[in-house]
Amino acid sequence: MNDFIYDIPVKVFFGKNQLGNLGPELKKYGKRVLMTYGGGSIKRIGLYDKVVAEIKKAGLELFELSGIEPNPRVTSVNKGAKICRAEKIDVLLAVGGGSTIDATKFIGAATYYDGDAWDLLTAKAPITNCLPIVTILTLAATGSEMDPVGVISNMETKDKLGFMHPLLLPKASFLDPTNTFTVSAYQTACGSADIISHILEEYFNMNRDLYMLDCVMEGLIKTVIKYAPVAINEPDNYEARANLMWTSSWAINGFINGGKNQAWSCHPMEHELSAIYDITHGLGLAILTPRWMEYTLDDTTVSKFYQFGCNVFDIDKNMEPMTVAKKSIEKLSDFFFNTLGLKKTFTEIGIDDTNFSTMAKKACMGGVLPGFKPLNQQDIENIFNMCL
Amino acid sequence: MNDFIYDIPVKVFFGKNQLGNLGPELKKYGKRVLMTYGGGSIKRIGLYDKVVAEIKKAGLELFELSGIEPNPRVTSVNKGAKICRAEKIDVLLAVGGGSTIDATKFIGAATYYDGDAWDLLTAKAPITNCLPIVTILTLAATGSEMDPVGVISNMETKDKLGFMHPLLLPKASFLDPTNTFTVSAYQTACGSADIISHILEEYFNMNRDLYMLDCVMEGLIKTVIKYAPVAINEPDNYEARANLMWTSSWAINGFINGGKNQAWSCHPMEHELSAIYDITHGLGLAILTPRWMEYTLDDTTVSKFYQFGCNVFDIDKNMEPMTVAKKSIEKLSDFFFNTLGLKKTFTEIGIDDTNFSTMAKKACMGGVLPGFKPLNQQDIENIFNMCL
Repeated sequence: MNDFIYDIPVKVFFGKNQLGNLGPELKKYGKRVLMTYGGGSIKRIGLYDKVVAEIKKAGLELFELSGIEPNPRVTSVNKGAKICRAEKIDVLLAVGGGSTIDATKFIGAATYYDGDAWDLLTAKAPITNCLPIVTILTLAATGSEMDPVGVISNMETKDKLGFMHPLLLPKASFLDPTNTFTVSAYQTACGSADIISHILEEYFNMNRDLYMLDCVMEGLIKTVIKYAPVAINEPDNYEARANLMWTSSWAINGFINGGKNQAWSCHPMEHELSAIYDITHGLGLAILTPRWMEYTLDDTTVSKFYQFGCNVFDIDKNMEPMTVAKKSIEKLSDFFFNTLGLKKTFTEIGIDDTNFSTMAKKACMGGVLPGFKPLNQQDIENIFNMCL
Repeated sequence: MNDFIYDIPVKVFFGKNQLGNLGPELKKYGKRVLMTYGGGSIKRIGLYDKVVAEIKKAGLELFELSGIEPNPRVTSVNKGAKICRAEKIDVLLAVGGGSTIDATKFIGAATYYDGDAWDLLTAKAPITNCLPIVTILTLAATGSEMDPVGVISNMETKDKLGFMHPLLLPKASFLDPTNTFTVSAYQTACGSADIISHILEEYFNMNRDLYMLDCVMEGLIKTVIKYAPVAINEPDNYEARANLMWTSSWAINGFINGGKNQAWSCHPMEHELSAIYDITHGLGLAILTPRWMEYTLDDTTVSKFYQFGCNVFDIDKNMEPMTVAKKSIEKLSDFFFNTLGLKKTFTEIGIDDTNFSTMAKKACMGGVLPGFKPLNQQDIENIFNMCL
């Protein structure tokens, strides 16, 4: 077992009556607040007005940047950083889902960098500082509210890059499940697939020495499986939304990693996909994950699939391990494509094999994508082809 | 579901090669370090020398307070606070188990209070400040390394009081499983019972709305059940010690509470017991817990026991809920008294009913002990009697 440092100092205000804490929390960091958000859904659900009222009540000065894209773009990041420098912003308030929060993280970092923010993503320039970030989450999916990672797209270069830096960690996050009541069935499904993928990327490894975390991960996956359909059928079911929301944070805040230094597999592949096709991240992951599982299942990995099948899907322990393993993949597919109703193939969402070779090469950076099972370009192309 | 604030900023250095981070970590808070420890076991295992070397290497000034008792006493706290004031200590370094860490927390707080530290425990005086605390854990049990709670005994008044304050939270904790290799089979057993009790105190409630946390708790209990016997039989099994150690922190750092505002039952009863008899906390909990479960099991609570039995002990779901419930208590008793080899009754450890009435009255403070099932003085006496 490897050593690790656990350090997640994000303060989380969880629940429906926490917004009164927003003003005092922001005030800790200064007076001039830049609120960032996406396409305006926060106005439709009334959250915008509530947030503005709290900011006013606290006597803070409000600046705004709206229009942050799903798969947020570096152009928005540069725009935000320019505002921060021009207006001498003290603290950033991201109101939205993972895209808004991811972009806000890089706005915070790019404020201290005079060139193109893309340089921070490509590590051409180092992240040296970041404005304090507070988030109000409106979608349970990426876990960005409690992690130090951001993923940004560059539509010019057709790149989508993720980058992690401790300075990007939000200071505080407000998680109010009622803010996710209006998330559509489709986005709830995609978010749920994203959460499950985050867990599986950590879960599928052959280091079995942190059983404790395996148990936790199985519990988190079971929680998504139990509540995603409830949230889809009863969008304002608080219990379901709350469980999904808190699970989404813990799926990726680093706790479940436990020093594994685990390289991820499906995420790098999916990033290439949505870099070119701008599809919803969770949908891409849902299509890819079961195929990746089929591709990696063999005699050397079967025991982990067996554990997954028995503990998550309650498949009969007495069956052959390989049978349990295959059944576990079927069960997960059934959950993604039947229960959640997500599209099952690339073909159904209009993606053909035109770019497979380019995407595969990029995903493994021309070499080998490490992870549960190392994958070279051909392997990745094979997996892409299984998704057609 | 209640709202809650999650705020656990403790930085944890987990693993066997982390001590190099100690000097820099302490240095953040100043130059003058008071190291606190117990009866000298840290010298026998060589940890003392390693810690002193790191402190010297960092150019810090070292002061020492040894002899902190199991069930640490307020006299030690007062002694420590006096040293801190006299020597202008900047940072406290607790090296030991929960007792040493608990005492150190109150030393840190009492440094800023001019009277008897007991006043801080009885809330006669408020905690207004606390010296920064770093811990090096040598026993997986109380979770004090990652929580804001301390329990202190007063042998004069025969009181044992716990107190929680955010200022008591350690800044950083070093969790090296190899530091627990020399923990005796008996102390490993008691620590494991303590961990399980912390989880059960949270788990047994009728608010079923945070299923996610129920899953996590079941996973944590299963981890203790899997690894405690391994650690007892193979004291230097790193995997077992690591799983127990990390589980002990998460059993009580607040994460699994999730806004339940859960009142605890067995801990208040046990505190009265060890206040008078100075027995090991975990042993008292092991004897009390199954009796408390028997006493609280009825038609209104059976569903939770059923869940416990099925998910933790894998008892057949198709059996009658009451049968599963009773079996789950048997299984837990079997684990405590056969697998871990702990004594099963008060009688065996020399405790008779002389003080039951006094202890019961104190445990419920003359009224009702809230919790999974509210208990009045008579209820608590009944439970004590079941332990004979």
